[in-house]
Amino acid sequence: MNPDRFLGPHKEIARELFQGIESLPLVCPHGHVEPSLLASEEARFPNPVELFLRPDHYILRMLYSQGVAMEFLLDTDKEPLELWKVFAQKFHLFWGTPSGIWLEYQWRRTFGMEDSLGPHNAEEYYHGLAEKLSSPEFSPRALFKRFNIEVLATTDRATDNLEHHQAIQKDDWSGRVIPPFRPDKLLSFQAPNWNDELGALQRLVSADVFIYQGFLDGLRERRQYFRSLGCVATDHGCLTPFTDRLSTAKASRLFDRALRRNLELAEAQSLQGHLLTELAGMSCEDGLTMQLHCGAYRDHHRALFEKFGPDKGADFPVRVNYTRGLEALLNTHGAHPNFKFIVFTLDESNYARELAPLAGHYPCMRIGPPWWFHDSLNGMMRFFDQVMETAGVYNTAGFNDDTRAFCSIPARHDLWRRASCRWLSGLVADDILAIEQAHRLADELAVGRARDAYNLTAQSAAVAASAGST
Amino acid sequence: MNPDRFLGPHKEIARELFQGIESLPLVCPHGHVEPSLLASEEARFPNPVELFLRPDHYILRMLYSQGVAMEFLLDTDKEPLELWKVFAQKFHLFWGTPSGIWLEYQWRRTFGMEDSLGPHNAEEYYHGLAEKLSSPEFSPRALFKRFNIEVLATTDRATDNLEHHQAIQKDDWSGRVIPPFRPDKLLSFQAPNWNDELGALQRLVSADVFIYQGFLDGLRERRQYFRSLGCVATDHGCLTPFTDRLSTAKASRLFDRALRRNLELAEAQSLQGHLLTELAGMSCEDGLTMQLHCGAYRDHHRALFEKFGPDKGADFPVRVNYTRGLEALLNTHGAHPNFKFIVFTLDESNYARELAPLAGHYPCMRIGPPWWFHDSLNGMMRFFDQVMETAGVYNTAGFNDDTRAFCSIPARHDLWRRASCRWLSGLVADDILAIEQAHRLADELAVGRARDAYNLTAQSAAVAASAGST
Amino acid sequence: MNPDRFLGPHKEIARELFQGIESLPLVCPHGHVEPSLLASEEARFPNPVELFLRPDHYILRMLYSQGVAMEFLLDTDKEPLELWKVFAQKFHLFWGTPSGIWLEYQWRRTFGMEDSLGPHNAEEYYHGLAEKLSSPEFSPRALFKRFNIEVLATTDRATDNLEHHQAIQKDDWSGRVIPPFRPDKLLSFQAPNWNDELGALQRLVSADVFIYQGFLDGLRERRQYFRSLGCVATDHGCLTPFTDRLSTAKASRLFDRALRRNLELAEAQSLQGHLLTELAGMSCEDGLTMQLHCGAYRDHHRALFEKFGPDKGADFPVRVNYTRGLEALLNTHGAHPNFKFIVFTLDESNYARELAPLAGHYPCMRIGPPWWFHDSLNGMMRFFDQVMETAGVYNTAGFNDDTRAFCSIPARHDLWRRASCRWLSGLVADDILAIEQAHRLADELAVGRARDAYNLTAQSAAVAASAGST
Repeated sequence: MNPDRFLGPHKEIARELFQGIESLPLVCPHGHVEPSLLASEEARFPNPVELFLRPDHYILRMLYSQGVAMEFLLDTDKEPLELWKVFAQKFHLFWGTPSGIWLEYQWRRTFGMEDSLGPHNAEEYYHGLAEKLSSPEFSPRALFKRFNIEVLATTDRATDNLEHHQAIQKDDWSGRVIPPFRPDKLLSFQAPNWNDELGALQRLVSADVFIYQGFLDGLRERRQYFRSLGCVATDHGCLTPFTDRLSTAKASRLFDRALRRNLELAEAQSLQGHLLTELAGMSCEDGLTMQLHCGAYRDHHRALFEKFGPDKGADFPVRVNYTRGLEALLNTHGAHPNFKFIVFTLDESNYARELAPLAGHYPCMRIGPPWWFHDSLNGMMRFFDQVMETAGVYNTAGFNDDTRAFCSIPARHDLWRRASCRWLSGLVADDILAIEQAHRLADELAVGRARDAYNLTAQSAAVAASAGST
Repeated sequence: MNPDRFLGPHKEIARELFQGIESLPLVCPHGHVEPSLLASEEARFPNPVELFLRPDHYILRMLYSQGVAMEFLLDTDKEPLELWKVFAQKFHLFWGTPSGIWLEYQWRRTFGMEDSLGPHNAEEYYHGLAEKLSSPEFSPRALFKRFNIEVLATTDRATDNLEHHQAIQKDDWSGRVIPPFRPDKLLSFQAPNWNDELGALQRLVSADVFIYQGFLDGLRERRQYFRSLGCVATDHGCLTPFTDRLSTAKASRLFDRALRRNLELAEAQSLQGHLLTELAGMSCEDGLTMQLHCGAYRDHHRALFEKFGPDKGADFPVRVNYTRGLEALLNTHGAHPNFKFIVFTLDESNYARELAPLAGHYPCMRIGPPWWFHDSLNGMMRFFDQVMETAGVYNTAGFNDDTRAFCSIPARHDLWRRASCRWLSGLVADDILAIEQAHRLADELAVGRARDAYNLTAQSAAVAASAGST
Repeated sequence: MNPDRFLGPHKEIARELFQGIESLPLVCPHGHVEPSLLASEEARFPNPVELFLRPDHYILRMLYSQGVAMEFLLDTDKEPLELWKVFAQKFHLFWGTPSGIWLEYQWRRTFGMEDSLGPHNAEEYYHGLAEKLSSPEFSPRALFKRFNIEVLATTDRATDNLEHHQAIQKDDWSGRVIPPFRPDKLLSFQAPNWNDELGALQRLVSADVFIYQGFLDGLRERRQYFRSLGCVATDHGCLTPFTDRLSTAKASRLFDRALRRNLELAEAQSLQGHLLTELAGMSCEDGLTMQLHCGAYRDHHRALFEKFGPDKGADFPVRVNYTRGLEALLNTHGAHPNFKFIVFTLDESNYARELAPLAGHYPCMRIGPPWWFHDSLNGMMRFFDQVMETAGVYNTAGFNDDTRAFCSIPARHDLWRRASCRWLSGLVADDILAIEQAHRLADELAVGRARDAYNLTAQSAAVAASAGST
C-alpha cells in the first residue's frame, strides 16, 4: 500500500505530521463491536462472509442497490463461498467508497493479501482469509493487541446485564473494553414494547420505576452500575435533536399517561426532550459524557424491515436543526463545569451554520467526528473545512470509529489520521499554522481530543489497568 | 483552446483519462432541443442572436440582472446586431460562468472563431457567425453528425402528436431522436387549463379519461404510443418530491373533485403524489425509466411572467427533502427489478444527506447529474465530492446536457467529461483508485451509466438504426 | 509574515494578482466601529485587553467555551494583565481560526511585534502593545490614515443623533466616516421598549409617528437627515428574511394594534415584512442601498444574556430561505433602476440554491460577502465556489469587514483580497479566465463592487471630501 495515500497535495508536510501520530494507540470511545468477541481468549471470527460481508450494512446496501437480493445476501444456509463470489464479481461497486478503502486496508495490511479482490481471485481470496481467521494470531484478542487499542467502547442497552463486560473484567486480560449507557428504548414512550423495557429496568433496580421520580432514580442506579464496569459515556439516538424542559408535575403527568398508553405524539416528543435534559443533569452529577446521535430516519423500507429486521441499510438522514432543538438542554446545563456533551450530525448543512457556533460558545459542547455516511475522506475534509475555523480543534471530540466491524478499526483510524494530517498540511502550506502547532493539533485529533471528551485521562487508564489486573 | 482546461491539479493523470473518453459518442437522454430543427434536411439555424442569445434563459437572466431591459432583449423588431453589440459589451458578466465556458467552446471549436467576444469585435463576430450558420455544413443535421450524437432525447408533452418525431423516423436519416413522455400538465389538477389538457388527451386515446381508471388507461395508451416512436423515459417536474399512496376509491374521489374544480390544495398534492406512485408502477410494467426533476419555484417574478411568459430566468430553487418525500413511491415500487428511477435536485444539501444514501439502497434509484444552476465545473465537483463515496458511481445516471441550445451540447459534455477525469485523477493521485479502475469509471461516467439508466443498450441502438432505415 | 500566505496552490498567479490590488484603499461600507473613536484627534485606544479582547465576541466566546468564566472575562476591576495572561495561555485555542489570523496580522504588522503570543511572553507582549497604544502614531485617526481607509461606515440607530458624525464632519479632518440608517428597533413591534423607541423618533421628526402614515414619513425624515451626514445605505437585521405586502388599510390597522400592544406574533411578522417592502420603496426614492442581514437567533443563552447583556457570543444561525421570503419585496421593487439591495446570509446552503439564482435575475439584488461565522478563508472559498458561477462577480457586493475591532480592518481586507486572488488564480490555472480578466475581477472584488453596490462613486467621494473640508 502506498505510504502516502490520502495525504493530498502537500504530501511532504502531511507525511511528516502523519509519522508523528501513526503509531499512537487507538482510542475508540464509541462503536458497535460485540463484547462477546472479546470475552474469551478462545473466541474466533467466523468465515470471511460472516466477518466482512453479512454484518456490514454498508456492504449489504450497496450490493442490494445493484440488484443482489436480500434473500440471497442473508441466506445462512447457502455456502458462504457462493456469496463471496458474487461479492467479488460486484466489488467494482465499492471502488472509490470508504467501504472499499477499509476492506482493502484490512485485507492487505491485517491479513497480508497481496492483491485486490476481483472475480478472478475470489475463491483463492476466500480460502486465504478463512485460513488466517482460524489461527490464534487472528483471534479478536490477538488483534486487539496488534491493533494497539487503548480502549474500546461497545454499545449496550441500559437494561443489559453486561455479562460479557463482567467476563472481560474478571478475566486475566489487560484489554480495556467499556460499556456506554444507552437508554434509548426506555425513552421510546410510544414504542409497542416500551412497557417490557420498563419491566426489564424494574427487575434490575431498587427504585419503583413505574412512577416518574422512581424512573429517574432507576436510570441513576443503572448509570452507577455501568460506571462500576468502566463506563465513561452515555449515548442517545433520536430522530431530531429536540430537547425540552418541563416542570416535574408536568413530566410526571406525561409519564403516567405513557404508562396508560395514551400519550399523544407531541407529548411523547416533549417528554423525550425533557428526559434528554434530565439525563444531561445526571451527567453533571456523575460525570458521564453525554453523546447525542440524531437525524437518522430508521427502517424507511418497511417491507424489507418486516422481513429482515433493522440495520439492513434502509436508514436515511433527514434535515434537522440544533440551534433551536438543543436550546432547552443547553440553557439548563450547558455551562456546568462537569458536563461534556458530544453532538453528532447526519445533516452536514449544520456544521458551519449551527454546530460550530454552538460548540464555540457552550462550555459543555464538543462536535463529534463525521458520522456514518460522512465517515469518509471527503466527509472528513468537509468536516475540517466547515467546523474548525469557528469551533476550533479544541471544541471537537476527536475521532471514533463507530464500527461493528472489529477488523476495520485500524483502517478507520488510519483514514482519519491521514485526513487530519492532510487538512493540517494545507494550513501549514498556507502559513496559517507553524509546523509545531500542526504537530500538536495532529496529536489532539488522533488521541488528545477523544481522551479529553470522554474523560479517558491517564488516571482513568490507570484505574482501568488496575481493574484489569484485579 | 487549452487542451488541458478544467483538468485540475493532477493534469497528467486527468489528461490520460480524458484521452480515453474524449471521442466517445454523445449520449443525450434528457434535453430540450426542438425536434423541428432535425425534422428536415433543409432546416437552418437563424441568426446568432436567435441561436445563442434569445432562447437561452441563462443569458437573458444575467443581462437582465445587470440592467438590460427585457423589452429590449426580447424585441424581435429590433435589428439583431444591435442586441448583439450590447451583449458583446456586457460579455464580461459571463467571465467565470458556465455560460461563458459553453459559448467560448461553441464559437471557437464549432464555429472556428479565433478570438473571444468583446466590444471591439462585436460586429465582425456577428457576421462571421451568421455566414457560417447559413451554410449546409452548419445545418442542425450536419452538426448532429459532426457532434457524434448517439441519441438525442427531446421534451414532449404527453398530448403532443410528435409530428416532428414521426417525420424524423420516416425520413431517410440515421440520427436517433427520441421523445420522452412528460405528463406534467395532466397532473396539474388545479391549473386553470387542466380540463383543456384532459380534453386533448381524450381526443388521442380510446379510454374514457374523465373517470379515474380511464385516465390511468389513457396515460398507458400514450406511453405505448411514445414507445412506438423510440421513447425510453418519462419525465416529471414538480415543486417538491412529495409522493403518496391512496386507495383507488380515494384517488377516484379526488379525481372527480378535480373534474368539478373543487379540489383543495392539500388534496391536489396528495393526488399528484399518488399519481407519481402510479406512474412509477406503469414504469415497472412497460420499462420506461422515470425521471423526477424537482425543487424549482417557477415564475417568481410575476410582472415579468405576465408580460413575457415562462422561462425568462425567474425560476428559483427552494429547499426540498427526499427521504420523507419519496417514501411512498420507493416503498411501493423501489425494489421492482424492471424499474429505474432517476432523481435530480436543485438543493445540493441533499446530495450527501439524502440522495446518495437512498440511491445506495433502493435498487431502482439513480442520482441524476448536476442540474440547471449546478451544471457547472464547481457544481460537478461538489456532486462528485458529495455523492460518490456513499452512492458509488454505479448508482448515478451519468450525464445529460439538459439543454435547449443544440450547439452547446458538445461543450457541456466536454465540461462533464473533463470534470469527471479531474475528479478521478484526484482519486488516482490519492491512491484510492488504480489507473485502470479510473479508466473504467471514466467510461461509465461518459456513456455507460447514461446508457444503462435509460436502457439505451446496444440492442436498442440496433432497433433505432433499423427504424431509421425503414 | 509570509508574503504568500493564504494564496493557495497557484501561488505565482495569485501573487501576481494580489500585487495588483494590495495597495488599493480600503472601502468599508459596513461595520461596527464606534464613531466616537474618530470624533477627536485626541482619542486613544485603551489597554490591549480593552482593545483586542473584551469587546471582541469572537474572543470571548472561544475562551468561554473552554472554561474561562464570563465573570472573569468581563470583570473590569481586575488588573487587565491578569486576563491577558490567561488569554496568552489559551491562545492555542485560536490556532487555525480567523481570530488567530486577524490578531497575528495586527500584532505583527500594525504593532510590529516580532513573535507570536504564548504563555512565555504574555507580560512582555502586553507592555509592548500598551506602550505603542499610548503614542500618537497609534491613535485611531493616525491608524485610519495609515490603513488607507477610503470610507468607513459605522452602525447607527435611526433615532441616534449622530453627534460623533457631526463632530467628525465639522472637524478639520479629511477621513470619511458615514452613518448607515438602522431602524430595526422601530420595526420590533413586539419588543417591550418599542414605544420608547417610537417616542424617541417622535422627538426627532415633524410627522406624527403615532399614526401609520406619519410613521412612514418619520422614517423618511430620518433617512434624509442621515443622508445629510453622508449616509449611503440602510441596514436591517431580522431573524428570517420574510417580506410581505399589505394594503395601506391593513398595515394601518396592524400598526394601531401594535400601539395598543395587542399585536399577535404572526401579525407582527407580517407588519415587519411589509415595512421591509416599504423601506425598499423608500430606497427607490432616495437611492439609499438597502442591506439585509438575517438568520441570527440572538441571545440563545438566556442566563448569560440576563447577566451580561447582548453580543457575548451566544447568537447562533438558524436555517432560513430567501426564494419565498423575499418574494413580496422583490416583486414590488426588484426591478426598480434606482434600487440596490444587498442580502447577507448565515445559512450557506442558500448560496448556490437561492441567493445566486435570485441575484442572477433581479436587477436590484447583490449578494453580500461571507458574514460573521463565515468571514474566514474557508468561508470565503465556499462563497466563491458556490456563488460566482451562477451570480457572476458583478452581482456580488464586494467585501465589507463588518468589524467592531477597528485595528482588525486591514487584516480582514488582507484575507479577503488574498482569498479572492487565490480563487481567481484557480480559474486562470484551469484556463477559465485569462490573466487580464482575472486582474479586472480582482479589482472589482477588492474595491469596485463595494463602491458600486453602495453608490460610493468618485462623485460621492468628492462630495465627502468637500463636506470634510467645510
